[in-house]
Amino acid sequence: MATVEQFVKEIARGNTRAIARAISYMEEGGEPAQELLSMLNQRAHAGIGPHIMGITGAPGAGKSSLTDQLLTYLRSCGKRIAVIAVDPSSPFTGGAVLGDRVRMNRHALDPLIFIRSMGTRGSGGGLSRSVRHALQVLYHAPFDVILLETVGVGQAELDIVYVADTVTVVLTPSGGDEVQAAKAGLMEIGDVFLVNKADLPGSANVAKDVQEMLHVTEREDGWDPPVLLSSAVKNDGVKQWWDACEEHFAHLLQEHRLVKRRGRARVQAMHELLQQGLWREMEHKLHEDDKYARMQEQVEIGDRSPEAAVSQILMDIFKSTLRV
Amino acid sequence: MATVEQFVKEIARGNTRAIARAISYMEEGGEPAQELLSMLNQRAHAGIGPHIMGITGAPGAGKSSLTDQLLTYLRSCGKRIAVIAVDPSSPFTGGAVLGDRVRMNRHALDPLIFIRSMGTRGSGGGLSRSVRHALQVLYHAPFDVILLETVGVGQAELDIVYVADTVTVVLTPSGGDEVQAAKAGLMEIGDVFLVNKADLPGSANVAKDVQEMLHVTEREDGWDPPVLLSSAVKNDGVKQWWDACEEHFAHLLQEHRLVKRRGRARVQAMHELLQQGLWREMEHKLHEDDKYARMQEQVEIGDRSPEAAVSQILMDIFKSTLRV
Repeated sequence: MATVEQFVKEIARGNTRAIARAISYMEEGGEPAQELLSMLNQRAHAGIGPHIMGITGAPGAGKSSLTDQLLTYLRSCGKRIAVIAVDPSSPFTGGAVLGDRVRMNRHALDPLIFIRSMGTRGSGGGLSRSVRHALQVLYHAPFDVILLETVGVGQAELDIVYVADTVTVVLTPSGGDEVQAAKAGLMEIGDVFLVNKADLPGSANVAKDVQEMLHVTEREDGWDPPVLLSSAVKNDGVKQWWDACEEHFAHLLQEHRLVKRRGRARVQAMHELLQQGLWREMEHKLHEDDKYARMQEQVEIGDRSPEAAVSQILMDIFKSTLRV
Repeated sequence: MATVEQFVKEIARGNTRAIARAISYMEEGGEPAQELLSMLNQRAHAGIGPHIMGITGAPGAGKSSLTDQLLTYLRSCGKRIAVIAVDPSSPFTGGAVLGDRVRMNRHALDPLIFIRSMGTRGSGGGLSRSVRHALQVLYHAPFDVILLETVGVGQAELDIVYVADTVTVVLTPSGGDEVQAAKAGLMEIGDVFLVNKADLPGSANVAKDVQEMLHVTEREDGWDPPVLLSSAVKNDGVKQWWDACEEHFAHLLQEHRLVKRRGRARVQAMHELLQQGLWREMEHKLHEDDKYARMQEQVEIGDRSPEAAVSQILMDIFKSTLRV
């Protein structure tokens, strides 16, 4: 066990190679991941840890350019930053045009910036688990800020963002963007809203619409999400954006809000793991347990309805019936 | 029970009001739904039942206009048709422009066409269950064709379409549409591909790209999905589309393919119900069972890791541990 302890110490010292290796271990799973995870979980954290920032929005909204500019800005403030990119269109995951790649490489060579990209292939659940595990490693490394960039489409992506302390939703003035965002459930999860491409016409209107939508429901945490304008092209609005995020973090530090928020994220992670685990065990039973395998066959040939089979199985396992 | 039997007979006779009421019962759930469902499930079906056609594609691809034209065409062939629309942009669910509404109303007054729209609000699982229940009712009514129109974005929508015998994927020549379709998993589920808006430039190229993408993998059912051009605006290509769908259905009728396909759909429905049921019972336990409620509290305050808690719970229920 001495080696795992040593490993964790190297992570805590900020050894980039140790951090990268630890995240890979976590992704691979199995014994080493288990050991490392329990060692990390046992390790008491001195302070509140890094500020975990989520950045989400539709493809093409300009998240990557904004992330890039934020990196430049935060570096100029002397911050140590880690980036987790789970956006297929992000330069960090290799899906972008040449110009973006060049920018990204500039940061990749910076020893105080750690960049990790995650594939969006595979199940959403698996991805959100990978992100959570990477965060558990990064949490114990000496970063000031962790940026989590994810494209805001689909439930899988929303499931990822809940681990962030502060979520920024990036919108553009293109037609109906705010309506799409509302449909995708982005209104509920944003702590800061950024109407990007503010040089295009209509941005002020979008900002106004978002502002109005946000005021329909009052948030129970007492935070009033600001709606800001930015222009990634003109390198405009990044400082105001960061100030808003810091203000939100300061808000979280009052009245145990951060502790509560991170606690909720842990419970949600537990629920996610539980859903996946229950289903994996059930699938196993459907294959290995003769009784259940026969039931499934009956459903397949139409001798038993799906409802009747499920009722029976739930009764077996939980002593309760299915309600249609 | 005599009344439920009578009710089912009215459905089988094609009594539109009985059909509509039965679907509403199913949506409301509870006792009457249970009774009706088991009565329908008990009822032997004389033939193979209606041809269930799924139509999916991105918003704005022209699904609704195509559905409308197909309705007109099929009516001219003397077919009896039911439509289930779960597309928020469909005129059948009320989200379309005036012209579409007018067209829709024309069909709504036709006694041989049954139209039912389903909200896309609520959980995907709930929606796919509603569709399946509506199909169970419609399956026992004297329709020749059931059209299931659903917008092809997100896993929830794909989960709905698997109940169809023949799935048509509608694409447009707009930039990168075929790439988006591939990403959304539409390539795997389409039995017929329709490049709509063929009057726009680039449609031939899109058709070629799709054709090539389809030839990368051979389908185990031996079907080679045709890629057709259509123009909803010019009312062009609808007959060829329908012919391709009938050809696919004829293919399914050979070598027990239809029986197998519908069997798979029933198994998938069973899995879906099982996932939902397991989680509902688990959530109940997390609230009501002191032991589990305490575990969740420990996770929330950070005294126990989500992984450790889930391991313990799975061990309790399935006598197995969580693999990270």
